[in-house]
Amino acid sequence: MKDSFSDFNAHGTGGQHPTADNAAESLAPDLLAAIRRYEQALMGNNTAVLSDLFANDPDGIPSVRSDDKGVLAGHTAISTFRSRRRNAPTRTLRRRIARQMDESTACVVSQFDKATGGSVIQTQVWQRIGESGTWKIVMAHLTYPTPAIDRSIWRVVGSPLVEATKPGPLSGMTVAVKDLYAVQGQRIGAGNPAFLRTSPVCAESAPAVRLLLNAGAQITGIAQTDEFAYSLAGTNVHYGTPPNPKAPGHVSGGSSSGPASAVACGQVDIGLGTDTAGSIRIPASYQGLWGVRTTHGRISCEAVHPLSQSFDTVGWMTRDAQTLEFAGKALMPDKDTVKSVAKLLVSPKLDECVTADVREAFSRFRAVSRSAVRSGRIGMLGDCDEVQFDSQMLDNLLSIFQAVRGYEAWRNNGDWVGGHYADLAPEIAARFECDSHIPQSRYEQGLEHLRQARSMVRNLLGSNVLLIPSASSTAPAVAHTGDTEGIENARAHTLRLTSIAGVAGLPAVNIPLETADGLPCGACLLGPAGSDKLLIRIAKELYRNSM
Amino acid sequence: MKDSFSDFNAHGTGGQHPTADNAAESLAPDLLAAIRRYEQALMGNNTAVLSDLFANDPDGIPSVRSDDKGVLAGHTAISTFRSRRRNAPTRTLRRRIARQMDESTACVVSQFDKATGGSVIQTQVWQRIGESGTWKIVMAHLTYPTPAIDRSIWRVVGSPLVEATKPGPLSGMTVAVKDLYAVQGQRIGAGNPAFLRTSPVCAESAPAVRLLLNAGAQITGIAQTDEFAYSLAGTNVHYGTPPNPKAPGHVSGGSSSGPASAVACGQVDIGLGTDTAGSIRIPASYQGLWGVRTTHGRISCEAVHPLSQSFDTVGWMTRDAQTLEFAGKALMPDKDTVKSVAKLLVSPKLDECVTADVREAFSRFRAVSRSAVRSGRIGMLGDCDEVQFDSQMLDNLLSIFQAVRGYEAWRNNGDWVGGHYADLAPEIAARFECDSHIPQSRYEQGLEHLRQARSMVRNLLGSNVLLIPSASSTAPAVAHTGDTEGIENARAHTLRLTSIAGVAGLPAVNIPLETADGLPCGACLLGPAGSDKLLIRIAKELYRNSM
Repeated sequence: MKDSFSDFNAHGTGGQHPTADNAAESLAPDLLAAIRRYEQALMGNNTAVLSDLFANDPDGIPSVRSDDKGVLAGHTAISTFRSRRRNAPTRTLRRRIARQMDESTACVVSQFDKATGGSVIQTQVWQRIGESGTWKIVMAHLTYPTPAIDRSIWRVVGSPLVEATKPGPLSGMTVAVKDLYAVQGQRIGAGNPAFLRTSPVCAESAPAVRLLLNAGAQITGIAQTDEFAYSLAGTNVHYGTPPNPKAPGHVSGGSSSGPASAVACGQVDIGLGTDTAGSIRIPASYQGLWGVRTTHGRISCEAVHPLSQSFDTVGWMTRDAQTLEFAGKALMPDKDTVKSVAKLLVSPKLDECVTADVREAFSRFRAVSRSAVRSGRIGMLGDCDEVQFDSQMLDNLLSIFQAVRGYEAWRNNGDWVGGHYADLAPEIAARFECDSHIPQSRYEQGLEHLRQARSMVRNLLGSNVLLIPSASSTAPAVAHTGDTEGIENARAHTLRLTSIAGVAGLPAVNIPLETADGLPCGACLLGPAGSDKLLIRIAKELYRNSM
Repeated sequence: MKDSFSDFNAHGTGGQHPTADNAAESLAPDLLAAIRRYEQALMGNNTAVLSDLFANDPDGIPSVRSDDKGVLAGHTAISTFRSRRRNAPTRTLRRRIARQMDESTACVVSQFDKATGGSVIQTQVWQRIGESGTWKIVMAHLTYPTPAIDRSIWRVVGSPLVEATKPGPLSGMTVAVKDLYAVQGQRIGAGNPAFLRTSPVCAESAPAVRLLLNAGAQITGIAQTDEFAYSLAGTNVHYGTPPNPKAPGHVSGGSSSGPASAVACGQVDIGLGTDTAGSIRIPASYQGLWGVRTTHGRISCEAVHPLSQSFDTVGWMTRDAQTLEFAGKALMPDKDTVKSVAKLLVSPKLDECVTADVREAFSRFRAVSRSAVRSGRIGMLGDCDEVQFDSQMLDNLLSIFQAVRGYEAWRNNGDWVGGHYADLAPEIAARFECDSHIPQSRYEQGLEHLRQARSMVRNLLGSNVLLIPSASSTAPAVAHTGDTEGIENARAHTLRLTSIAGVAGLPAVNIPLETADGLPCGACLLGPAGSDKLLIRIAKELYRNSM
């Protein structure tokens, strides 16, 4: 461990003026001692000392620590973060600029060279706290070296990875493609590095990818997915959990996790994904994005690694409704087969499926939307009505959905998965293992039930749109201790909601909402089969009305 | 323009506790007004107001502004930065935590959602300044959303892009490959997007790439180069100038610019490049890295896009000598043909070629090295001696070098370049245009002179090593105004130094040094042909002795 204080005044200005490593002469000796104690504790990962040196939210105002992962507010949040963190790698002080504003406050900016390359910039505000007047940090802001690639979001990224085929309406727009789509010259990884190794190079891009390229969009890169798209959380054990910038510390949602985070982080405009059981709607809802899953069968899933052909659909996510619509025009050059819809349907009983904060945000949006429809402010909708989805019905839909999807998931992946259980996350392996035992007879019966259920739901909706919550909760917190109960719980409840569109093969749009706590959640608007583009326009109108 | 103050207290805690958007109630009204004025000026890019709101280095201590590009210290540096910057895109306040420490100091942390995705975190320390007690910013620290890829460093990057072929001594090490090397399944871009478009997919990786993969290293990505490797600055007009983390605001050096910055930034361990006229030694010297160009012809340049076959060599850069040596063992499985050397040669006359700060740092290192050799502390070197390279000799070498390289550069690239002048940076186009007029007769004469000069230099060195400055200066500042005179000047002076190894086809190692101002520079150790691995060991020994 290098004592950075030995470097005080050892370096010059780094070619910039006016500056000096002035800490040693301009700071109070007891502050210098505190800074030194902090640095030593950091190198030794002495979390008790580090916690002690952060002020315990004096005057009821939280102490704050910020970095590229977000803002930690409050002594407890900062201490918890510390306890999960490993040693800071060795770093050498390059320069330090300190200003003691008065006898009880100071700020210090330090730049360290890291032994592993790059530099760390650390701004700290110190204050004398309490009767004893002990120096503590009340605010800290850190900048770390940026990695070449965020593996939690991306598998491969270029500048761009694939140029647009020709100029078009999406010229200048950038796309993250979920790692299930064939991209010419690339392999499909499906969220699993071992599968990637055995995967052939694709001779052609999938039709959906080609449609975007032909409309002028460029592919920035291939983005991560939950393994084989078989989860809704976004927690890939091989590549890590992508960030959720509007809910730091919470999961991204999946399985279109990488495209969703890439859009939310502002790295691309469009996240191309798939939706089988909610894999577009859930990450969109968790991250405050617009998202659409299209009518089953409307956009070709050719050259897309399948999970379950009875349910797989093409979908995409964007930060705004306009871009969602633009991408829709490129991806659905055919006309909607449904030109108009009648009513806005709601199903108050589904409120039971969601947490209180989401219910509050969703029901406010629903109320505002109904009132707008009733007063004729939403031109495309004539009236409102209620439709009853009860718990029993949802259980039935989910059970049909799971039997069919499970059999097909195994049929599509069993050959590879059966020989590679050890290469999968335990919970994904368990899902496949369970699927491997579904007998063909149960599948065939499931298909028959699916046909019936699909008709039933489509009839229930008629030529109307249905507004329901997108997910049962906001994004669960990332489980640091391996305790995935919260995530599993959210998945079970959410699946009941998402299986309505899944079973019925209907298009669905996530409209981003926010809870009172400022966390993203979503309203899901389902429409008749073939109403996709109209549905996006209605969703846009309802959102605009609610603003 | 959205007035972020309308959002004060509009949002909740973002799911974290304890926190509040407490600015409105807890800050002095005139401070709130100043914060508001700052935000408005930022949105309107009112640089006069922004400059005014940053304190003008009170008490002689610089005001500081930090972000992921580095630390700006001093009011002048911050104002200059501002004047070159465009509007901040629209952003909406998500949360703000403010603490007024006493009546004259406060710090404020604000998190904004950007309309273009992601969020901005801004920490500001405000202080009442002067008799009037006006609130000014004395320190600011910003975190912006990270792009998917830093195009100035990388053309394509994976997680990894290419896995190791098998485990080996370089297992766990990551490589940035200069965009001249064939990488299986990828195209060669040579630093030019138009050339990339017409470039075929490579069926096989270049031998040097395969050697690294077979030794257990993985390829993180393909890194940028100056166009066709025909510059020493690292300023690619198409992809931008890669960062120089040890000298922010200064060029990276080239032409192995991307690999060098990737190593310096800690994104990879090894930067694989090429050196024709200094393209390894210069970026290594400018960025404080170890670098080696190998004996001409020792490592195959097959499947490496050529600049000039008479001089092109394989080389690499690392942060430490140990890794340089490890990579050398993988890349040069053959034994050195030179087993030992005799003396450490120096050439004091070359001091004229370098700026005062580099001369000072270099001559200190030279003096320490000579004294170590004389006192027998460097086991591999028996004695010291002087050898005279005078200005006339260097001019001759450079002129021979330029004629041969120019003719070959055109022979290698003229077919494509001749039809694409408009797709090249003007100065690169001008270089090629000039080359296109070199008659074959001058080339043949040049080759004859080259043979003679090569013998002459090799005889002059004998079985000794030669220690000279790597470059004529530290990295020139990035030219913001299109004024590239500083860069061109550095190139002309530096070429005279680098052409010694270039003409003679000798191996050369850059040993990283630092000027009194803390800027990187370098000492270059040249050895006999075929002494490459020994040369690295000697360089390591001299460096260790100097520490």
